[in-house]
Amino acid sequence: MAKLRPHFVLFGDSITQQSFANEGWGAALADLYSRKADVFLRGYSGYNTRWALLLLDKVFPKVSSSAPEVVTVFFGANDAALPDRGSQQQHVPISEYKENLHQIVSHIKGNSETTVVVLITPPPVDEVGRRVYARSGELPERTNEVTKLYAQACKDVAKEAGVPVIDLWSLFQQTQNWQQAYLSDGLHLTPRGNRVVFEELVNVLNCRPYLTADELPMDFPPFSEIDWKNPSSIFQAKE
Amino acid sequence: MAKLRPHFVLFGDSITQQSFANEGWGAALADLYSRKADVFLRGYSGYNTRWALLLLDKVFPKVSSSAPEVVTVFFGANDAALPDRGSQQQHVPISEYKENLHQIVSHIKGNSETTVVVLITPPPVDEVGRRVYARSGELPERTNEVTKLYAQACKDVAKEAGVPVIDLWSLFQQTQNWQQAYLSDGLHLTPRGNRVVFEELVNVLNCRPYLTADELPMDFPPFSEIDWKNPSSIFQAKE
Repeated sequence: MAKLRPHFVLFGDSITQQSFANEGWGAALADLYSRKADVFLRGYSGYNTRWALLLLDKVFPKVSSSAPEVVTVFFGANDAALPDRGSQQQHVPISEYKENLHQIVSHIKGNSETTVVVLITPPPVDEVGRRVYARSGELPERTNEVTKLYAQACKDVAKEAGVPVIDLWSLFQQTQNWQQAYLSDGLHLTPRGNRVVFEELVNVLNCRPYLTADELPMDFPPFSEIDWKNPSSIFQAKE
Repeated sequence: MAKLRPHFVLFGDSITQQSFANEGWGAALADLYSRKADVFLRGYSGYNTRWALLLLDKVFPKVSSSAPEVVTVFFGANDAALPDRGSQQQHVPISEYKENLHQIVSHIKGNSETTVVVLITPPPVDEVGRRVYARSGELPERTNEVTKLYAQACKDVAKEAGVPVIDLWSLFQQTQNWQQAYLSDGLHLTPRGNRVVFEELVNVLNCRPYLTADELPMDFPPFSEIDWKNPSSIFQAKE
């Protein structure tokens, strides 16, 4: 497709992959930016940052003309799986997680310094909610205590790399009953949880006026501006 | 962005532009095809087919390498506005509407014969619902009787051009209380109305097995297939 609009890329794990379902934050973004930006879904269920590195050259090739304007990087929920429980194969040690996030940010920025990279921390884990998904008798594969460390590491990377971050781990827990309000299974998001991600992302974009939905131009004139007796005039004028 | 997946383009008026809101049919399609296709929103609120023609060269440029695999063409609700009421500037005579639809289909097919073009008729109009939107004392700007003729013209074009069509005008009216069940303001779609469009579109795609969500390959391996002790092996094997 011809590039008619800025490109926003949502890069992450299942919480990103599912962001067009269930009143999802990805769909809400695409709706807010309809006529103004194209939103690309690059969510990979189950992926951690180690595997995300293996996708970088393909998802973000070094062709500057195709560099996106905005990228959300939303990994950590799988890296934080405990190394001695049911999802051990997804575990990535925290020091490697930090290094991998840095590599992701610098790869994207290396293609285009002007790309806005937004890090998002993993959401908090509700262990009671996760227990339903563990096999009978098993302990949950993630704990909130450990995920907190990954969320902090994500914030550290954002600070070190000088990019914005959405601290979902902390934000969710400011609400009483966050476990049910924001999480559907102790890890993935309810419509309300999706709403928080969407609103926080819009807040980040609103700090960059040229990227707000209000300021970005429509790709073609609103129909109310078309002279219906000479419709081609406004299209020619825009060329 | 690099083309990692087939491209599905939703080309139409406000009913397309709004298809990522309100449990919309566009978002549902993007969700069903996550990891498998990229869905591009090309909805232009208020546009009729006459103005759509002015976009064709830009939305569907003659560069075959970028030709989409699927395009929905969903115009007619505005063309069918009555020429002597409040939305007269959007009106397009029915013979011109037919000719314009033919031009749209042949432009897209001219870029790539293999592109699947799906026509969608305008939905039926609930005049009671529309009255709320007419200025006080004015008659509604559309009638269901006239829109029926545009829906029939759309079906005729599909038959003549040999492309599939979703006859939304008839489908909606098979349900009692369609006015409230499927339409939010006598013209635009409720979540249930969006669901019908989504399901009908999936039915059309399911007749082309290589385009079903089940058959299309994921762009990268599912995480369960990654050898966590040698993760790069499967990515190299796919190259």
